Amino acid sequence: MPTQLEQSVNLAWVLLCGFLVMFMQVGFAMVETGFTRSRNAANTMAMNLVIYPVGVLGFWLVGYGIMYGGMPEWPTLGGPVAGSHEAALRLLGRSYGLFGTAKFALVSVSQSPASLGMFLFAVVFMDTAATIPTGAMAERWKFTAFMIYGVFMSMLLYPVYGNWVWGGGWLASLGANAGLGHGVVDFAGSSVVHMTGGITALAGVLVLGPRLGKYRADGTVGAMLGHNLPMAVVGTLILAFGWFGFNAGSTLSASDPRIALVAVNTMLSSSAGALSALLYVRFSFRKPDVGMTCNGLLGGLVAITAGCAFVSPAAAVLIGVVAGVVVVWAVALLERRLHIDDPVGAIAVHAACGCWGALAVGVFADGSYGAGWNGVSGPVRGLLFGDPGQLGAQLVGVLVNGAFVFSASYGFFRLLERLMGNRVPAEVEHAGLDGLEMGTDAYPRG
Amino acid sequence: MPTQLEQSVNLAWVLLCGFLVMFMQVGFAMVETGFTRSRNAANTMAMNLVIYPVGVLGFWLVGYGIMYGGMPEWPTLGGPVAGSHEAALRLLGRSYGLFGTAKFALVSVSQSPASLGMFLFAVVFMDTAATIPTGAMAERWKFTAFMIYGVFMSMLLYPVYGNWVWGGGWLASLGANAGLGHGVVDFAGSSVVHMTGGITALAGVLVLGPRLGKYRADGTVGAMLGHNLPMAVVGTLILAFGWFGFNAGSTLSASDPRIALVAVNTMLSSSAGALSALLYVRFSFRKPDVGMTCNGLLGGLVAITAGCAFVSPAAAVLIGVVAGVVVVWAVALLERRLHIDDPVGAIAVHAACGCWGALAVGVFADGSYGAGWNGVSGPVRGLLFGDPGQLGAQLVGVLVNGAFVFSASYGFFRLLERLMGNRVPAEVEHAGLDGLEMGTDAYPRG
Amino acid sequence: MPTQLEQSVNLAWVLLCGFLVMFMQVGFAMVETGFTRSRNAANTMAMNLVIYPVGVLGFWLVGYGIMYGGMPEWPTLGGPVAGSHEAALRLLGRSYGLFGTAKFALVSVSQSPASLGMFLFAVVFMDTAATIPTGAMAERWKFTAFMIYGVFMSMLLYPVYGNWVWGGGWLASLGANAGLGHGVVDFAGSSVVHMTGGITALAGVLVLGPRLGKYRADGTVGAMLGHNLPMAVVGTLILAFGWFGFNAGSTLSASDPRIALVAVNTMLSSSAGALSALLYVRFSFRKPDVGMTCNGLLGGLVAITAGCAFVSPAAAVLIGVVAGVVVVWAVALLERRLHIDDPVGAIAVHAACGCWGALAVGVFADGSYGAGWNGVSGPVRGLLFGDPGQLGAQLVGVLVNGAFVFSASYGFFRLLERLMGNRVPAEVEHAGLDGLEMGTDAYPRG
Repeated sequence: MPTQLEQSVNLAWVLLCGFLVMFMQVGFAMVETGFTRSRNAANTMAMNLVIYPVGVLGFWLVGYGIMYGGMPEWPTLGGPVAGSHEAALRLLGRSYGLFGTAKFALVSVSQSPASLGMFLFAVVFMDTAATIPTGAMAERWKFTAFMIYGVFMSMLLYPVYGNWVWGGGWLASLGANAGLGHGVVDFAGSSVVHMTGGITALAGVLVLGPRLGKYRADGTVGAMLGHNLPMAVVGTLILAFGWFGFNAGSTLSASDPRIALVAVNTMLSSSAGALSALLYVRFSFRKPDVGMTCNGLLGGLVAITAGCAFVSPAAAVLIGVVAGVVVVWAVALLERRLHIDDPVGAIAVHAACGCWGALAVGVFADGSYGAGWNGVSGPVRGLLFGDPGQLGAQLVGVLVNGAFVFSASYGFFRLLERLMGNRVPAEVEHAGLDGLEMGTDAYPRG
Repeated sequence: MPTQLEQSVNLAWVLLCGFLVMFMQVGFAMVETGFTRSRNAANTMAMNLVIYPVGVLGFWLVGYGIMYGGMPEWPTLGGPVAGSHEAALRLLGRSYGLFGTAKFALVSVSQSPASLGMFLFAVVFMDTAATIPTGAMAERWKFTAFMIYGVFMSMLLYPVYGNWVWGGGWLASLGANAGLGHGVVDFAGSSVVHMTGGITALAGVLVLGPRLGKYRADGTVGAMLGHNLPMAVVGTLILAFGWFGFNAGSTLSASDPRIALVAVNTMLSSSAGALSALLYVRFSFRKPDVGMTCNGLLGGLVAITAGCAFVSPAAAVLIGVVAGVVVVWAVALLERRLHIDDPVGAIAVHAACGCWGALAVGVFADGSYGAGWNGVSGPVRGLLFGDPGQLGAQLVGVLVNGAFVFSASYGFFRLLERLMGNRVPAEVEHAGLDGLEMGTDAYPRG
Repeated sequence: MPTQLEQSVNLAWVLLCGFLVMFMQVGFAMVETGFTRSRNAANTMAMNLVIYPVGVLGFWLVGYGIMYGGMPEWPTLGGPVAGSHEAALRLLGRSYGLFGTAKFALVSVSQSPASLGMFLFAVVFMDTAATIPTGAMAERWKFTAFMIYGVFMSMLLYPVYGNWVWGGGWLASLGANAGLGHGVVDFAGSSVVHMTGGITALAGVLVLGPRLGKYRADGTVGAMLGHNLPMAVVGTLILAFGWFGFNAGSTLSASDPRIALVAVNTMLSSSAGALSALLYVRFSFRKPDVGMTCNGLLGGLVAITAGCAFVSPAAAVLIGVVAGVVVVWAVALLERRLHIDDPVGAIAVHAACGCWGALAVGVFADGSYGAGWNGVSGPVRGLLFGDPGQLGAQLVGVLVNGAFVFSASYGFFRLLERLMGNRVPAEVEHAGLDGLEMGTDAYPRG
């Protein structure tokens, strides 16, 4: 049992890291708005502004209860093991069904500091997942449809998959119940947060279709450049800053000395991703590509998120290098081959690199951390360190994410299409969403 | 007596939260500049840049001594009770006069870490109050007059009212001395910081008058849109981030487990304020209003600031919902009915929602916190939880704030009007303050 | 030996402060891009984006080993003394040669949380030094040459001088070995970080030459105004925010109560620098100069960085006041007299004020801190408090910085000039680097 002061230190850590993650909303807002056109800048900003309150209230009312309601409560935020959500799993070693059904609106837990701290930390992770599609679906998404999506994502879609991996669900229990390594291990959410957001974005873009003018009758592809590259770069660096809270806070305790390795790995992988994308594009096309460097940096961050506590610094660099190449490939594949129009590269960054990051745990986890994780004894080891079962568990995790999140979100967008439509009329899209959809310009003159 | 390590943890908490509050200066700068016209962007930014050093040095030299100089020194930053400013009150249970007269320029306390930490935390709260009028009075305020205002605000006006509620003054003692609940209770400053700033802004705007062209001879009202909505949205989200430090840091200790509820309530109320304003405008005028959503979010933050440690999460949502409506009403009332021209809505956000937030403590405080606050035994309870006296104390607090702050600041601006004038000449205002007043453009070409 | 929890608290402090320093990259990016022309905005942003990953990987592979590889490892992050790098010095009291030769790529230390935390904190300091020349050399620097510079700076130049002062090198040992006070004392890097960056920038600008059109044939000097003053102001305030981590984190422990004085001094000096520059320019030229106020604020920050833990608040104000004047003088001297073209004033801010700050320790250190520093008994005292030797040590430190950093970086840029050239062709410079060098516009239309 940790001392009172240790609990206080851990609570303060979780809160401060949670604040940093909330600040990532600014980063997303700037990256997405910078990479879209000025006629849609008010709309893109507005989606990033509004997803936060919609998501917070939706998760408070319903989502948190679905995601974590099946678990016993955190009585404390303790040391490296006690108090983490995995600790509860370890103690109980069984699945809690397909979703939780308690703690709605924080009823019954509002006097527990540890629970409230966990709620705040959980909210901002949901918010990260929920804001990803606003980039990919930008420049043509009806604002009302977007708001309804926000309710769906925060109340239902994110919490259900989240429950399976972080809330004591069946994917977390694949180790204890089916002998696959330690079950699905995703330290800070390469799959739970980023892949979920990225796959939802993919489904949304497929339902919405490409922006008018992107794919022309003569077979050429319109460039449709974003209007403010400095804004996108600043947003990228803000995301890199907030991500330290995202990853290092996911120990749920400052008294876990692993926070240092987590932070260092996060920094190294993001750097490797940025340079890898930069150099790859430069040697292919003779120019540095600033936007792709941003996406490489973000891809490195997404990819290390699952494994940051389990792998060595050198492995973190390697994971980032691969992520930088994955981003470039995925952007080209989506835009050129598949004609899937994602203005900001969110699907490439979050779905593709999220998938890679979740798998990388199953390859590079080096057995120095995670003893008892998900109720399985011994530390987490990847393929290279002797446990092929862990890679199997990770593979199941990403396949289930792809299948479940895609079908659920595709079905949702389809249903909404029938009920009210997801896309603004063509004349609104041509003129820009700011004037007709939002009733304001982003940059009024006068 | 807290241990040495506990004191260190609490000092680190107060400093880190203080840094976050200082960062709110960036948020204010972006909100105010985004909501004003490009011809005044350099001037509006410059006021936000310069209020910080003017205020810091004014508060260091004089203000801190007036606000806290009457109290005994904080020997430690201790647990939930010991070390907070209320602790000193509780120990001593009496008023310290109308203002303090010691600790000027940090003489005599510069070797006490707890005092220095408190100074830093107090400075950034003053700075928040002082920067509020720069938004409401923007686009026509003479820069020299603004700088003199900064000296007045940081040295005298803010510290005096602050002394009455937080420095052991007579409003804090209304419980112990006059039987009104726990005296005026304002956890993080809905009245002390925000209402003070907002009322000062109101007085300033009344003395300055509306911008040229705002109210036309034919009775129509000019729109005078801000020049950069994305900048204002980013600033709003930055304020929401820094506000976690503002509110959660106001425990003055990380070892008070209440920090978790404070942070969660802050998040919930801001979200409720944003959505409430958004939906209210949307259903009234058929368009989402991005600027009003920003102000709703900020209004929710201002309103929960007084009560964040005393109310339940559900009450925080309710306080935010009301704040979102209050902002919309107050903006309409000021702009349309009273012809009070506040380019950024600062009076509505800070004065109106600050008043509502201070009163809300007297309604929703649920008796789960604040035992011994201001020297009165038992926890703080609002009207709904059995103590109508607390609402009485809060009412006295906001009435005194309105009366004292308004008359002092109105008198100050009037005096300055006579001595040197507050407003730039009409030709400077028409051309924009940037060129003629600041000697530069915000966005030079070349 | 500190307790486990104390070590955790100190590790969390170092990490959180390190995150804040990393966030300063956003501040630098915005200041530099705001102060340069829109045709080079993508390029200036890109340099600020790319220096981070290049520097991180270069420092990880080589630089950290050169800077700290000669020292024994930090087993813990302890109290005020134990665990700091000075602690190691004190225990051993001798120089470790001209550079280290171990710990490359974090091999052998990747399982030590204290070492990893120190690595993260050290990286972001290197990054600060490395990003300074990107401002001074902006608007004409070839991107490939810049990237090679990033490798040189992070792997070799910064680590070598850093080793001499912070890695147990001969400048730190000047007290123990040569009787000069406590040897070179630079708490958070006025010389190690800022002067190194500023002197490198000076060498780079001398090799590059002024921008085309800056110094005309008729003897007039072109204004070449930056394109976005609000961006520069926001960046300045972001730097002021992150600097709290820079300085207060440099205790390397939250359990050192000196963190409070450090933070307060940082705030006071920056404020004094801003006001001093503002008023000095205003009374000389009748206009407030927003850009110069930014540089005054930054100059105050740079100047207090070396002494923030050693001087009183009043001395911090004085140091800032002088820094504000130094910045104005240095900008005028460089631009008008010496025809050294630094678009953002980086040399004035970082080299001149860094030099002043390092010397100021030798004047104002008041004997209340630093007992045992660098293996010398008794606290650190400046000239005014009885130890002229300390000023001597500081003088040696800045002379060596100027001589070594200048010759090494000048030689490097000269060599690169011969091998591949540092400057873009004139037609690229005229058109702006964005289109031809980066292949994109910062603000595309469409």
